[in-house]
Amino acid sequence: MTSRSWWGWGSDEAALTAAEVDTVVGRVAALMPDHDFTDHPPPSPDDLDVPRPRVQPPDVLAELISDEVADRLSHARGKAFRDVVRNLEGDVTHVPDLVARPTTEQDIVDILDWCATADIACIPYGGGSSVVGGVEPRFDGPAITLDLEHLNRVLEIDDVSRAARIQAGTLGPHLEDQLRPSGLTLRHFPQSFEFSTLGGWLATRAGGHFATLYTHIDDLTESIRAVTPAGISESRRLPGSGAGPSPDRLFLGSEGTLGVITEAWMRLQERPRHGITVTLGFNDYPSAVQATRMVAQAGLYPSNCRLLDPAEAFLNAGAESPGGVLILAFESADHPVRAWIDRAVEIAVEQGGRVLSRRDREGQGNEGDSSTAWRSSFIRMPYQRDALARRSMIVETFETACTWDGFDALHRAVTAAATDAVQRVCGTGVVTCRFTHVYPDGPAPYYSIYAPGRWGSTLAQWDEIKSAVSEALSANGGTITHHHAVGRDHRPWYDRQRPDPFAAALEAAKEALDPARILNPGVLIQTR
Amino acid sequence: MTSRSWWGWGSDEAALTAAEVDTVVGRVAALMPDHDFTDHPPPSPDDLDVPRPRVQPPDVLAELISDEVADRLSHARGKAFRDVVRNLEGDVTHVPDLVARPTTEQDIVDILDWCATADIACIPYGGGSSVVGGVEPRFDGPAITLDLEHLNRVLEIDDVSRAARIQAGTLGPHLEDQLRPSGLTLRHFPQSFEFSTLGGWLATRAGGHFATLYTHIDDLTESIRAVTPAGISESRRLPGSGAGPSPDRLFLGSEGTLGVITEAWMRLQERPRHGITVTLGFNDYPSAVQATRMVAQAGLYPSNCRLLDPAEAFLNAGAESPGGVLILAFESADHPVRAWIDRAVEIAVEQGGRVLSRRDREGQGNEGDSSTAWRSSFIRMPYQRDALARRSMIVETFETACTWDGFDALHRAVTAAATDAVQRVCGTGVVTCRFTHVYPDGPAPYYSIYAPGRWGSTLAQWDEIKSAVSEALSANGGTITHHHAVGRDHRPWYDRQRPDPFAAALEAAKEALDPARILNPGVLIQTR
Repeated sequence: MTSRSWWGWGSDEAALTAAEVDTVVGRVAALMPDHDFTDHPPPSPDDLDVPRPRVQPPDVLAELISDEVADRLSHARGKAFRDVVRNLEGDVTHVPDLVARPTTEQDIVDILDWCATADIACIPYGGGSSVVGGVEPRFDGPAITLDLEHLNRVLEIDDVSRAARIQAGTLGPHLEDQLRPSGLTLRHFPQSFEFSTLGGWLATRAGGHFATLYTHIDDLTESIRAVTPAGISESRRLPGSGAGPSPDRLFLGSEGTLGVITEAWMRLQERPRHGITVTLGFNDYPSAVQATRMVAQAGLYPSNCRLLDPAEAFLNAGAESPGGVLILAFESADHPVRAWIDRAVEIAVEQGGRVLSRRDREGQGNEGDSSTAWRSSFIRMPYQRDALARRSMIVETFETACTWDGFDALHRAVTAAATDAVQRVCGTGVVTCRFTHVYPDGPAPYYSIYAPGRWGSTLAQWDEIKSAVSEALSANGGTITHHHAVGRDHRPWYDRQRPDPFAAALEAAKEALDPARILNPGVLIQTR
Repeated sequence: MTSRSWWGWGSDEAALTAAEVDTVVGRVAALMPDHDFTDHPPPSPDDLDVPRPRVQPPDVLAELISDEVADRLSHARGKAFRDVVRNLEGDVTHVPDLVARPTTEQDIVDILDWCATADIACIPYGGGSSVVGGVEPRFDGPAITLDLEHLNRVLEIDDVSRAARIQAGTLGPHLEDQLRPSGLTLRHFPQSFEFSTLGGWLATRAGGHFATLYTHIDDLTESIRAVTPAGISESRRLPGSGAGPSPDRLFLGSEGTLGVITEAWMRLQERPRHGITVTLGFNDYPSAVQATRMVAQAGLYPSNCRLLDPAEAFLNAGAESPGGVLILAFESADHPVRAWIDRAVEIAVEQGGRVLSRRDREGQGNEGDSSTAWRSSFIRMPYQRDALARRSMIVETFETACTWDGFDALHRAVTAAATDAVQRVCGTGVVTCRFTHVYPDGPAPYYSIYAPGRWGSTLAQWDEIKSAVSEALSANGGTITHHHAVGRDHRPWYDRQRPDPFAAALEAAKEALDPARILNPGVLIQTR
C-alpha cells in the first residue's frame, strides 16, 4: 500500500527523489535564471485550522463515514495547479464535513436519502484527480464526499462480446490487473490513469491516451448503472441502438450532478501484439499541421498521431525540429501494421516530414502495448509540476478542440493571449502545444504553460492567465474542454458554449432526478 | 420531377413495371403456390372520405399551408407495411388537418408559435419514410404536418475540415448532388436514401449502409441547429468535446418531440477510389457467425460485413450455401485496401469460409463507391414489398442489436417466435436474417418475413407477428430498434427498455422545451 499525497499528485512514495527534483529544477532554471526557486514545502495537516464538521451521520450510516481531518483534507479538492497551490498555502476553505465510503449500492441509496432529508450536498468521488474543481465543495452549507473506493471490482467478463461489468470506483491499474488474466484490456489510459477511476472517467467523458478512434470513454461504454435520488437507472447492454436519445449519453459528462454511477459494462479489446512507432520532424509548423490533418483524414486510425510543436518537442522529447515533431504509431492484436504505418508515413513525408526514428515491435507481444511506452514518458509529469509549484513556478495545462479550418486562427489567438498574459503577469514564460487527439474534422490542441510566479501570488497569476486563454479559445470556436471536464472552474465559458435550450433541458433533467439538488452543486448547473 | 406515391413507397414512375411484378410474384408463388395473388390496387384519393380540416391557418401563414386532400393524404403516415396496407384499404383515419411547408427558419418559429397558441399538434416531416408510425397523427385533436422540403440546400462546404452545413429537409440524392463538385460525400446511405432527409436521419438516429465505423448519423454529426418552442438551439462545431453531456445527443433520436432540426454541420469524406469485395460461403451458420464476429473484432473496419443466413442468401442473392454467405468489402479514398481485405478473408477462411467471388475495384474511382453496388441491389426492394402487399402477402422487416454472447439465444427465440406466429397466423411463411451492421461487441440482426395473408386481414396478421417477435427480442436483451426508430409502433417495448430515471429526465426535458406539448405527441413520450 502506498499513501496518497494529501496536497499534491499521486502517492508520497512515488514523488520525485531529491536528485530528480534537482534535475527538473536545473532544467527550468536554465530557461529562467532570474527566478527564485526557494522550496515551499506543504504544511502538516495537523497544523491547519480545519473547521469542525457541521453534520453528524445517523447511527446506521456511522461506520461508513469518516470525520478525520486528514481524510477530509485529502478529499477537499482535485489535483489542478490551483488545488496544489492552495494546499501548499494552507488554504483550507471548503473542506467536506464528512467522507463516506459506501461498500454497496444500497449504502449509496441510504446516504443519498439521508443527504436529501438533511439537506446535505453530496459529491461523488472517484480518484480525486479533477483539474477543474469538480470535487470541491465550493459552496455554502454542509457537504459529504462520497468516495467509491470500495466499489473496485471487475464483476463479470464476457470474452465472447469482449466486455466487462466493472464497478465505478475501480482505479485504472487495478482495473487492468483484474482484466489481465482474460487477455483483454479496456485500453483507456488517460494521464491520470493511476489515480482515477472508471466512474470518474464516465462522469467526465475522459479521453484516453490514444489519438484516434476508440479512445474516449464514451465510445467504450456498453451500458451504465447509476443511483439517482429518483431511483436506479440501468441501460441495456447493447452494441448500438436507435431507440430514442441515448440514456448513457445523459450520464456521460454529467459530472456527478444527476446520479452516482456505480458500475458499467465496458467494451474491451485484446492486448496488442503488433506495433510500429515512427517519429518525423518538420521544417515548418504549418506543414506539420497539414501532414497531421491528412493522416487523420486518410481512414488509417493510428493509435498515436501526436504533433508536438517545436517548444513541446524540445521540452518533452529533447528533439530539436523547427517545425515540430509528429509521433505516429499503429498497434494491433490481430495483424502486422506495416501497411498502415507505411501509408501514414508516406503521407507525412509528402508534406515535408523527415523520418527521425522508427521502432518496430511487430509480433512482440505485450511489449508492444502502447501503455508501456506511455507510462514511462507521461506518468510522472504531474510530480514534476508539483515540485515546480512548490518553487513558485506556474506550470499548468489547458486544452480544447476545434475544426481544422479554424485551427490556425485559434492557435494564433490562444498563443498570443497566453504569451501576453504570461508576460503581463510573470514577465516571461513558455507556451507549448501538442495535439493529444486528432479527428478527421479537427485536432484537440493541448497547451502547457511554464512561467515564473511570485510565491503567494501564483494562484492569482494563473487565474489571470487561465481567464485570458479561455476567452481566446472560446471566442475562436473551441470547446472550453475536450477531456478535462467542466467542473466549477470552466463554468463561465461552458455556460456560454452550450445552447440555452439544452441548458434548460439539463436543468429540467436535474430537477427530475435530483429534486433536493444535493448532487455536486455548482457543477454544470446553477446550485438552485 | 417525379410524383410521389400517395399510398406506397417512392415515386409512381419508379414503381415496378408489369413485367417486373410478374417476375416477383412468380418467384414468391413458386414458394407459396396456394396463395391468392389477386391484385388489390390502391383506391383513388378522390374516392376517399377524408375529413375536412378542423383548423384554418391565420392569414399571415396561409401561403405556407396547404389543405388539399392529396397533400394531406400523402402526409398521413409513413411507409411501413402497415401504412401501405391501410392506404390500400382506403383507411383514412388520422389524416393531418393541414400541411405546412416553411421556407425559412422564421416560418418554423411562427408556425410553432401558432400551434402552441391554438393547441394544434405539429409533426416535423422529412421524407416521410418512417416505418414505425413516426409521422402519423395517431391521436385526437387537430394536427399540422411540418414538411421541410423547401429547406433543401447545402449552405456551406468546409473542405479543409471536410464538413458541410446542410439544411434538414435535403433528400439524400439532392444532398449528394450538391456535395459532388467538392469531391466529398456524406457517405450515409440508408435503404430509404432516395426518400428520406438529413433531418429525418438525425431525428431517428439512422444507420447507413456501411457495416462498421462511421455509418451511424450520430457519428457523422458535428453540430445541430434546431427550433424548439423554447428557442433556437445551436451547438458549436466541434470534432470532439468533453463539456458536459452532449447537446447533440439529446436531439439525435428525439424523433421530432423536442424541436425541429433545421440544419446541421455534417462530417464528410472523400469519395472512395479503392475497393475490394469478397463473398464467402459457409457450411454451417454458427461458423459463419463466429467468422463475422472475429472480423468485427479484428480492428479492420470493413465497409461491408454482411452475413446473410441461408434463406436470405437464396432469396436476395441467389446463392445456395448451407451456412449462409458473408459479404466483406473495404473501400478507401486514400489507399489500396488489399492488406485489409486479405486479412479479413484469412480470418473468415480460418473459420471455414470458402471464397465464392472477389471483385477488385482498386483505383477505379467512383465506380468503386459502395453506394453504386448498393443502389442496384437494395433500392427497389420496397417497391417489391408494395407489389406483394397489394397481393395479400405479408412482407415486412424488423431489426435489433445485441451482444455477441447473447446472439444465439436471441436468434433462436426470435426465429422460433416468428416461425410460430407466421404458422399460427398465416399457416406458412419464411423468416430470414441478415446482419446489417456489426460491432466489436455485437451484431445488428435484421429479419424479413414473407407470409401469405388474407386480404382485409393482413394488417391484423402482421400486428400479431410483430408483437410476438418484439416480445422475443426484448426478452432476450435486444433493443427494440437498432435503426428504425421508436415512433408510435415501438412504444410498448421502448417504454420497458429505457431506464425509468431516464424516462423521467426525458419527460422533464420535453416539458422544458415544448411546454405546450405540441411536437409529435405520442412519440417517445406520453402525450400529456
